[in-house]
Amino acid sequence: MTTTFQAVDPTTGEKFGASFNESSAQDVVDAITKAAKTKSAFAATSPAKRAAILRAIGAAIESRREKLIEVTMKETALPSGRLTGELSRTVFQLEQFALQVESGAHLQAVIDLPDTNWVPAARPDIRKANQSLGVVGIFAASNFPFAFSVIGGDSASALAAGCTVVVKAHPSHPNTCQIMHEAVVEGLEKEGISGDAFGMVQGLSPDLTYAIVNNPEITAIGFTGSGLVGKILVNAAAKREVPIPVFAEMGSLNPVFFTPKVLAEKAADLAKAALDSATLGSGQFCTKPGILVIPTGAEGDNFVKEVESYLGTLNVAPLLNKGIADRYGSAIAELAKSSDLKVISGNPTSGGFGVTPTVFVVDWAKASHELLEEHFGPTTVIIRADFKDFVEVASGLEGQLCAALHATSGEKVQELLGALSQKAGRVIMNGFPTAVAVTAAMQHGGQWPSSSSHTTSVGLDSVFRFVRPVAHQGFADELLPPALQNANPWKISRTVNGKVSKDSI
Amino acid sequence: MTTTFQAVDPTTGEKFGASFNESSAQDVVDAITKAAKTKSAFAATSPAKRAAILRAIGAAIESRREKLIEVTMKETALPSGRLTGELSRTVFQLEQFALQVESGAHLQAVIDLPDTNWVPAARPDIRKANQSLGVVGIFAASNFPFAFSVIGGDSASALAAGCTVVVKAHPSHPNTCQIMHEAVVEGLEKEGISGDAFGMVQGLSPDLTYAIVNNPEITAIGFTGSGLVGKILVNAAAKREVPIPVFAEMGSLNPVFFTPKVLAEKAADLAKAALDSATLGSGQFCTKPGILVIPTGAEGDNFVKEVESYLGTLNVAPLLNKGIADRYGSAIAELAKSSDLKVISGNPTSGGFGVTPTVFVVDWAKASHELLEEHFGPTTVIIRADFKDFVEVASGLEGQLCAALHATSGEKVQELLGALSQKAGRVIMNGFPTAVAVTAAMQHGGQWPSSSSHTTSVGLDSVFRFVRPVAHQGFADELLPPALQNANPWKISRTVNGKVSKDSI
Repeated sequence: MTTTFQAVDPTTGEKFGASFNESSAQDVVDAITKAAKTKSAFAATSPAKRAAILRAIGAAIESRREKLIEVTMKETALPSGRLTGELSRTVFQLEQFALQVESGAHLQAVIDLPDTNWVPAARPDIRKANQSLGVVGIFAASNFPFAFSVIGGDSASALAAGCTVVVKAHPSHPNTCQIMHEAVVEGLEKEGISGDAFGMVQGLSPDLTYAIVNNPEITAIGFTGSGLVGKILVNAAAKREVPIPVFAEMGSLNPVFFTPKVLAEKAADLAKAALDSATLGSGQFCTKPGILVIPTGAEGDNFVKEVESYLGTLNVAPLLNKGIADRYGSAIAELAKSSDLKVISGNPTSGGFGVTPTVFVVDWAKASHELLEEHFGPTTVIIRADFKDFVEVASGLEGQLCAALHATSGEKVQELLGALSQKAGRVIMNGFPTAVAVTAAMQHGGQWPSSSSHTTSVGLDSVFRFVRPVAHQGFADELLPPALQNANPWKISRTVNGKVSKDSI
Repeated sequence: MTTTFQAVDPTTGEKFGASFNESSAQDVVDAITKAAKTKSAFAATSPAKRAAILRAIGAAIESRREKLIEVTMKETALPSGRLTGELSRTVFQLEQFALQVESGAHLQAVIDLPDTNWVPAARPDIRKANQSLGVVGIFAASNFPFAFSVIGGDSASALAAGCTVVVKAHPSHPNTCQIMHEAVVEGLEKEGISGDAFGMVQGLSPDLTYAIVNNPEITAIGFTGSGLVGKILVNAAAKREVPIPVFAEMGSLNPVFFTPKVLAEKAADLAKAALDSATLGSGQFCTKPGILVIPTGAEGDNFVKEVESYLGTLNVAPLLNKGIADRYGSAIAELAKSSDLKVISGNPTSGGFGVTPTVFVVDWAKASHELLEEHFGPTTVIIRADFKDFVEVASGLEGQLCAALHATSGEKVQELLGALSQKAGRVIMNGFPTAVAVTAAMQHGGQWPSSSSHTTSVGLDSVFRFVRPVAHQGFADELLPPALQNANPWKISRTVNGKVSKDSI
């Protein structure tokens, strides 16, 4: 018997719209088998063709913009402005990958010509380029219905890498996923590629997750979500007969530190900005500042007062689904029992998956492990610590996606920044961790447990997760992959005997 | 009570020379603690300083060349010519890493300047560069007493990456390890760096291995050795509270395929070259061709006959230690029992750890799993298969470090090469897998189980195993790491807004 499910409106908690069939284990096998059958043809596409595919997908998404915003607003309760920007980002990142692929940068072609003076023996002709991994399993995230869902950053980078994809849709926004999948298939087919190259399964059952990660044709996993599920994936992948890499971005606390001097200058502005960042998207970002490290003393006291008064002015949208709202509610209630904490409550959002925004204030010495876990939703923890202990506080943290420091010009904060850079993939001065630019220099991925690897899941370098280098030694020119042939038929940048060049050899 | 051990002469099986204390668990902790105390200072060294350190170590090795060759010959029974070349390679790879570090290529600096036209929001100033991981644990290999032992490729790349190192010496060549460690410390101290940056422990106990991989200060493992130990390391590292990457190069079969046409042209030459490669270093290379895929039919029969006659002319040196010799002897004896195989035996090497070189011949359909495991020592397996089934044979293989194909000019072998490139990190035309050039285009690392990751353990890219990228957003110039400052004080190549440049900003 086929199980079905529907989307739920977070503002009411009521089901609505189309009924979706829960995918079966056989559906997963079928999708992966189809993606495997197309992988060689897709991997062989030229940079120009693959860029055209990425752009065709972007165009197919754009042509559905109005419908998407309407459907996704209803499924996620995220505001129109946020979704409009996120959709633009989603199309933009496809274009960024198209530009990268056109340049050939994803191939990292290196050619070392024969050299009889090499040590200890003559060097033969060796040419290395990246090769796509095969079929990649991607898990859509609830909190980015466009930018990290069906054809978000993980899928886009996998396609750019030349991999075919099977994605597990997110059951919090099944209609959005359905439309996005149609767009991807339309884009592929417009460029003459079978839609089999990009399969999708839908459903609520955790069995789907295991069916994907344990399938022998799956060569890598891209995941953005909770530490709990991320660690399940990492462990399952490691136990396979042939282990595969899991690129899991598992969220973190993203601490923001403030010096006494900077608070003396602008405590009110910073308190507002910090809360805006912590409650953006109802606090459902992996980059939410989950800790604000505030110095003891008058400047810090002032910051806390400003937080207290500003929190009462905020109205926060309901959470994305019942699971997130329930976990938030029980975690906040449990934490609030501690007599070590001061609890500042905001305006409850009524109906559906509404919750109460909450800020905790605690002395560093009394901060419990439970408090310093990531709590998805509109909450953050103000840690009070002596400024002279800030380096120690930073050094005591687990790995983080990002960390930030607010300081005045000329303050001696090198040591603190150094400590933060030991933990985080991105360190920010005088800013907040939310908003992650899709760009070459972006690093979205820090030390464990924020990420399962040292790679990035945002920006151009994310493509390198889904390729591996292969060296070709002593090949006749016509047997080399095009990227490595003497004539450089794709006109890409290559490093030839140590010099970057687009020339033929 | 301190346990002691001595080196053993493989030609006699007798102990000789200095008595070494087995390191204790506390010795491991002490070495790692010292390496951790120096890690920040070492990571902060400029490219010029770090290059000078690598060269000073190379010079300190060179100044011990005569002594090393003498001691290492006695400990390994490897011939002088081989060791002389390997020592040159060891110094050469330090120089190659010095050149890489001087250029700043290991830092992969990327600078994206603010851009108000970015989508969906203005891009802030973001600057990314690689940062060293901290203290790396390295395990010396028995079969490369110089090039993959104390200061071989793994250690050299870790130092180039800015990591401090604790190495577990190999008990098959403890005197060599001791001298090499002295050379490293001398090189470091000559450049004003404490010898604590490079610790070494010696001993036979597997406890040392666990003590290293489980120490919280260890941030990554470099390992070259057996699949058995490699998998133990991978599993132990995954179970840590903070899992760490294990870059294990675990050896493979490195299949070499021959077309009927090429055998028709030169079966005798190829048979000799194949056996020379398979018995080089007494067959104790991770790149040893452990399978020769030979077509059925007259050309292939001829190749087998040539192998048979050539094997009788070869004299092979004893193996490196008792463990390897014992495992070789029992594996060969066990395999030889099968009635499915033809067994060709060469000249037994008498005394010490001498063994009998052995070639097996088997039909593809009858090749057992045991036969297709890596057997360290002077043996290889000739697989007879119909040429039209070669792609199927290749596709049925596990992951390989390398794979090779011998064919005549113009033969249509694209499909076979494609199948091999799905398995191997390096594919070779008309050559043999032994000899791995230390160069930018080298890839020494293939699909599981030949390697635990898609990285390379040889060549310039091996440095990227021991760094992770960190992005700096919105930093005041003077607070940025030197690699990312506007003035480009280190004069390194950086990618600024997509263009490679050494200019200041």
